[in-house]
Order: sequence, then structure tokens, then C-alpha cells
Amino acid sequence: MLLIGVAGGSGSGKSTIVEKLLKKFGDDIGIIRHDDYYRFQPDTTYEERSKTNYDCPDAFETSLLVRQLKELKLGKSVMCPVYDFTVHNRSDEVKEIKPKPVMLIDGILVLADDDLRSQLDMKIFVDTDADIRILRRVKRDMRERGRTIESIISQYIDTVKPMHEKYVEPSKRFADIIIPEGGHNAVAMSVIENYIKNYLQTCFE
Amino acid sequence: MLLIGVAGGSGSGKSTIVEKLLKKFGDDIGIIRHDDYYRFQPDTTYEERSKTNYDCPDAFETSLLVRQLKELKLGKSVMCPVYDFTVHNRSDEVKEIKPKPVMLIDGILVLADDDLRSQLDMKIFVDTDADIRILRRVKRDMRERGRTIESIISQYIDTVKPMHEKYVEPSKRFADIIIPEGGHNAVAMSVIENYIKNYLQTCFE
Repeated sequence: MLLIGVAGGSGSGKSTIVEKLLKKFGDDIGIIRHDDYYRFQPDTTYEERSKTNYDCPDAFETSLLVRQLKELKLGKSVMCPVYDFTVHNRSDEVKEIKPKPVMLIDGILVLADDDLRSQLDMKIFVDTDADIRILRRVKRDMRERGRTIESIISQYIDTVKPMHEKYVEPSKRFADIIIPEGGHNAVAMSVIENYIKNYLQTCFE
Repeated sequence: MLLIGVAGGSGSGKSTIVEKLLKKFGDDIGIIRHDDYYRFQPDTTYEERSKTNYDCPDAFETSLLVRQLKELKLGKSVMCPVYDFTVHNRSDEVKEIKPKPVMLIDGILVLADDDLRSQLDMKIFVDTDADIRILRRVKRDMRERGRTIESIISQYIDTVKPMHEKYVEPSKRFADIIIPEGGHNAVAMSVIENYIKNYLQTCFE
């Protein structure tokens, strides 16, 4: 199994890379999103949970993700938690993730945790200027999530930016490869696709 | 022909990457070093030439390199200038460079020139912390060039560092792929080698 971590700031273009790879390699590739491992927060009010800093490593139950990656490597399926963003808490549901020859691990902080990093065979960091990233985030949050510009800006200034500078940006130094501009970088996409294609060929030989 | 530019600061690990690729792909790969295109400086004294800033884009006759790359792409051999570092000037000699399926273009400023960049199919920037780079440079210059620590430091402070910050570092934004730590980064080496291998396969099919 080839485990590829795809990290980088919010709006960096991570998702575009991930979606292109999923589309290209179909059934040979799987995806695990770090966001699904946001902690279960029992005995808290909605109000309290709304104030949680979701861009901080502590917000994730990364140890569970690491345990599940080890299971997947042994060829076993795992039951991944399902996070309910509308109530800011883990739901009662789980979803099955089956082991695939190539697994992508997607998340802003995928390279920030020692144990998680040590599971990865390839560590990719998508590096995009902060101004481009926030513009993408503004567009997405206004269009898809119906949020006001004021609320987007205050969340960005209060948590997204400081956490990016404290945890996401410094994790870049652990990357094997840094890709500027994400999924629109055709040469980098082609290089990664080639690598996966070669890996799959050796798997099925 | 696949033209791959390998840029990055002095001591970044560029040369290690280049040497590993040359060794691995043998006769299918060629190398052009930007340093060979340092300008011919007629009517100057040795003293004047010693003071030339060799880390500045103006020090290179990049237009000649670009013309020669176009010739190589047409399948023609070119006569590359030979620079004589002992006299700080271009020598009377030239060396033949034959077109190969893959050509590497190596140099700190390979991504800093618009025309040169537009010739490249893949733009690699090798990114290594400034402290590690200067330590490598100190070791190399003391061991291989018999220089004193004082002269290395003064050259570094006077030209290498300011030129790096002015021209080399900003050219990183033009890279398709950024490789931390150069040729000792096994995953990145493997990714690039795979890409070249696949390219060569399509050439010879």
C-alpha cells in the first residue's frame, strides 16, 4: 500500500489534486479525510462547540486515524467516524473504508503530527500564497455555505491565519515534495500521476 | 526532448540531484550548466573580473544558452562555451553538447530568466535552509578550493546572500515542483526518476 499525505493551507488547492487523482485512478485509490476525525465532544453545548478552534491539531483524534491506517495496511477495512458539521460534533454514524493499493490522506495538518507522518510513504505539501488562498475560501464560503464576508473575515483572522502560521506552514519542512498552486499545476500533477501509475504497475505485476 | 531546469541556492543540493540523474540515465540524458555561460569580459583586468558579481543574472549570457537550447530541440549539436574560473573569463575553448532525449539545465538562476524558463518542460527548485546551504559551501570551498573561512564569509555576505534573496529565492515561485533538501530526499528523487523513465519509454516506443 502506498500512503500519500496531501497537506497545505485552506484554499491551497489540495482538494483539486485529490479529486483529480481519485478520478484518474478510480477503484485503485482511496481517500481518508483528516476532518472526519474531529474529536467527539460529549457534554458540551452547541455554543461551546462552535467556539472550538478547528484549525488546531488538538481538534483531531489523530491517534484513531493512525490506528486505522495501520489496520488498512494489514488489508483490513476500517470504520471511519462521520463528522456532522451542522452540529459541530461526531455523528453516531460510521462509514466503511476499504484498503486500496493507494490511499490519499487529505487535510491541512496531515504533516503536523509525528505519528501520522511516520505512516506516510509520500508527503506532499501544496503551497499557495496566502492572498490566493483566502480569496478561494471567501468565494467558497459565500457561495456554498451562504456565509457573510464579515463572519469569514473574523474566523480567518481569529483562528485560520494564526493556526496556519503556527502549525500548517511549519509542517511544510517535513514534505518530500512541495507543489505550488495545487491541482492547476499540470507538470506536478503529471509527475505524481506517473509515480502512482508506476506503483500500481508493480502491484499488479 | 524533455528539458528539466534544476535551480536553487548555492549548497542546496542541486548538484547531488543532477549527478544522481546523470548516473541513472547514462546516455539518455545530457547536462548543460548555466555557469558555462558566464559572459566573456574582453578589455578587463583580472582584478576587475575578480570583482564581478557572479551571482547576479547579468553575469550570464543567458540569451546564448536559450539559442542553443532551441538548436538542441531541433536535434542539432551546439558548441557550448567553456569558462575558465582560474582567470575569471571565458576561455577560447568550446565543448560540443549533443542533443539527448532528456537534458538537465543546472544553475542557481535557471528559473530567474523569462526566456530561459519558457524553454523548460519541468522546473525544479531545490529548497534548503540558508544555514545548511552555507555550511555545505564552507566545507566545499575550504576542502576543494583551499579558501580561508574569512574570504568565504565575506563573499557570502557581500554577494551570495543578497543575490540569493534578490534573485534566487523569488524565482522559486516559478517552479513546478519544489524539493526540500536536494539529492538526499529519496522520495523526491524516486518521483523524478519515475517521470524521466516514463518519458524515455514513450520516446522509444
